[in-house]
Amino acid sequence: MADKKSKTGGPVTSRRNLLKGGLAMGGALATGTVARAQDGEAAILEKQDWNQYLGEGVDARAYGMPSEHEADVVRRSVAWLTADPISSVNFTPLHELDGIITPNGVCFERHHGGIAEIDPAEHRLMIHGMVDKPLVFTMDDLMRFPRENHVYFLECAANSGMEWRGAQLNGCQFTHGMIHNVMYTGIPLRLLLEEAGVKPNAGWLLAEAADAAGMTRSIPMFKALDDCLVAFKMNGEALRPEQGYPLRLVVPGWEGNMWIKWLRRLEVGDKPWHHREETSKYTDLMPNGLARRFTWEMDAKSVITNPSPQAPIRHSSGHTVLTGIAWSGRGKIDRVDVSLDGGMNWQRARIDGPSLNKSMHRFYFEFDWDGSELLLQSRAVDSTGYIQPTKDELRAVRGENSIYHNNGIQTWHVRQGGEVDNVEVS
Amino acid sequence: MADKKSKTGGPVTSRRNLLKGGLAMGGALATGTVARAQDGEAAILEKQDWNQYLGEGVDARAYGMPSEHEADVVRRSVAWLTADPISSVNFTPLHELDGIITPNGVCFERHHGGIAEIDPAEHRLMIHGMVDKPLVFTMDDLMRFPRENHVYFLECAANSGMEWRGAQLNGCQFTHGMIHNVMYTGIPLRLLLEEAGVKPNAGWLLAEAADAAGMTRSIPMFKALDDCLVAFKMNGEALRPEQGYPLRLVVPGWEGNMWIKWLRRLEVGDKPWHHREETSKYTDLMPNGLARRFTWEMDAKSVITNPSPQAPIRHSSGHTVLTGIAWSGRGKIDRVDVSLDGGMNWQRARIDGPSLNKSMHRFYFEFDWDGSELLLQSRAVDSTGYIQPTKDELRAVRGENSIYHNNGIQTWHVRQGGEVDNVEVS
Repeated sequence: MADKKSKTGGPVTSRRNLLKGGLAMGGALATGTVARAQDGEAAILEKQDWNQYLGEGVDARAYGMPSEHEADVVRRSVAWLTADPISSVNFTPLHELDGIITPNGVCFERHHGGIAEIDPAEHRLMIHGMVDKPLVFTMDDLMRFPRENHVYFLECAANSGMEWRGAQLNGCQFTHGMIHNVMYTGIPLRLLLEEAGVKPNAGWLLAEAADAAGMTRSIPMFKALDDCLVAFKMNGEALRPEQGYPLRLVVPGWEGNMWIKWLRRLEVGDKPWHHREETSKYTDLMPNGLARRFTWEMDAKSVITNPSPQAPIRHSSGHTVLTGIAWSGRGKIDRVDVSLDGGMNWQRARIDGPSLNKSMHRFYFEFDWDGSELLLQSRAVDSTGYIQPTKDELRAVRGENSIYHNNGIQTWHVRQGGEVDNVEVS
Repeated sequence: MADKKSKTGGPVTSRRNLLKGGLAMGGALATGTVARAQDGEAAILEKQDWNQYLGEGVDARAYGMPSEHEADVVRRSVAWLTADPISSVNFTPLHELDGIITPNGVCFERHHGGIAEIDPAEHRLMIHGMVDKPLVFTMDDLMRFPRENHVYFLECAANSGMEWRGAQLNGCQFTHGMIHNVMYTGIPLRLLLEEAGVKPNAGWLLAEAADAAGMTRSIPMFKALDDCLVAFKMNGEALRPEQGYPLRLVVPGWEGNMWIKWLRRLEVGDKPWHHREETSKYTDLMPNGLARRFTWEMDAKSVITNPSPQAPIRHSSGHTVLTGIAWSGRGKIDRVDVSLDGGMNWQRARIDGPSLNKSMHRFYFEFDWDGSELLLQSRAVDSTGYIQPTKDELRAVRGENSIYHNNGIQTWHVRQGGEVDNVEVS
């Protein structure tokens, strides 16, 4: 790790590297699923020199980073998708993750005017419009209101959007990576609205960002008073700049563009505003030329993250762990089924880890692979009984004009040898 | 942000900085808990120029970092505590965090021989000793075993150890910061032991690290077969190097030194090994000269993280949010009580967020501060009914010789003006 500063001083790192270079790297280790120990130990000790030298000490003042061996576990963008990175997206590396928490460093980004670079000491949140008392809050003011903690998924409405017209992108990072799942700490929006005093005939809220795009969305009052949060922490620490530092609106279960980042203004009114981002974007063009609007809730969805095109099977046969994620904007996930043959036969997957409302769920399916081709699919059922549809079932109802709200079943084709591709089956 | 690379190219950053320098920073904003909007808006707009210019775009390939304004939210060490950072500790910035998830970048570190720098492709885990089949696993082998996901706290046995002899360190980061709480993904240790076939009369396990210290601990078989995990992920991503990358033993509810990092070897035996780190360290010297040993379980404990010495109250009076964390190695936290007067009167705090087994719990207590002095305390009650004791109650039983297992009630003295100090009351 050439660019790592030596914190312990002295020749520790260079001595270690010197020896590494001089070591014979021979001695093949016994392979197979599990090797017997007796022959392996000498070879192991030969290759493993890391216990021969003192390592780096603790940092006196440090924010830690992943191992250099995990350098590929990063958000990635696709160059051709948008004209400029300022109004673009990158994707969460779902195939490299497990459990249900997305680490802050790899939560996908989507901006309309780049990342607003905000000094929290100067940031303000204004509530005005149809209220008794227009208010301006500093960050310190907000820290004096009661807080709640919830784990919620955030999914972009356009997640899987390229797939409406057939299998396009070869990797779950790109087909499904506009989602993340973190624990938010925030103030129930209801409490701030109560402080301002919402007038009786008010039914809507306009949330506005402090970014260069002036991103806005209209939010119905019933949702604002239900479970929305004005959040300032994610996974315990301050929101990341690209996630709205220092304040973002959390709109549980609803499409990500409504979760206004860099939140600066909440205007209370009696009708929706129909601003740019809720007309030109984030409406769903139907085959008859009309557009669905107010399609806020994210329908139940799932995807197998391993195996997947970026994470092929590396063994020739035998014990294999299939894993993936499932989520619903309407509640919890009750069941995930898995098919190995493109949807002809289904078996129930094991959901493991906390099952929380409007949060990502992790599922596993362990099976013995015989080394032959597979067509992997997963199908989520949420706590309302809604069953994730096939892509063809969705297209029959919605056509192919929209790029939003594609929650169709994903198919991965596992070839002999373990390589995986994005395909469609019908 | 002088050291930030421009990802969007062009003069965006420099134009912004130029204007910032030329802006009149006058125009005092209305202060108080909550300001009325009418006078404030012009002043707000004057100071907030971040929506006047395009921000940084998405990264094509990036692992994200916190805002530059959060540069103080880091692990910190104390120079005089140990002779060398290679065998030292740093502390989680608890006063800067909220919720129950500790971000990986600020999880405290404790090493006995520095951080082993391991190539996962060359790492092996051996199980041998009193087993039918000694086994060596590669990382790929392990990925073929069933996994589970659990959020667990990890607390160093020496957390709060300096406080046995009175109030020493001025900040909850230093008094209580040898704890973190993350979601682990790992293989139940039971499954790996079953694969090797544990002999009937085996009752213990020696877990060994691949670091320069060769850190070892004896673990009773009943715990190994209960809820221990061989973990490879924390908060969704690979373990951090300082947390045992690529493999660590997770020993839920038990003292942190048993959670062997860089796990390389598990030896099955019929008695404990009494190695260096379980005799010279990690035993508790009693007043009579005998030592308590096998003090594995972490007793119920809590601490108020805000207000605290590093996080004073910044307003003169009125609505105030008190928050803190509580945990128990024996189960969940059922109740947290808070005292504002050094333990004379107690009121029940609100526990918020997921209540999980052997996991950190977050509590809040909202009150109207009259601006006068306070003696803040918190007291946890776990799901077994155990009540967190006072420091004096603990000393009466255990004396002051040990540095381990101090779970006594912490007192913070809030002065007029809001500054906070670590004190003892009796």
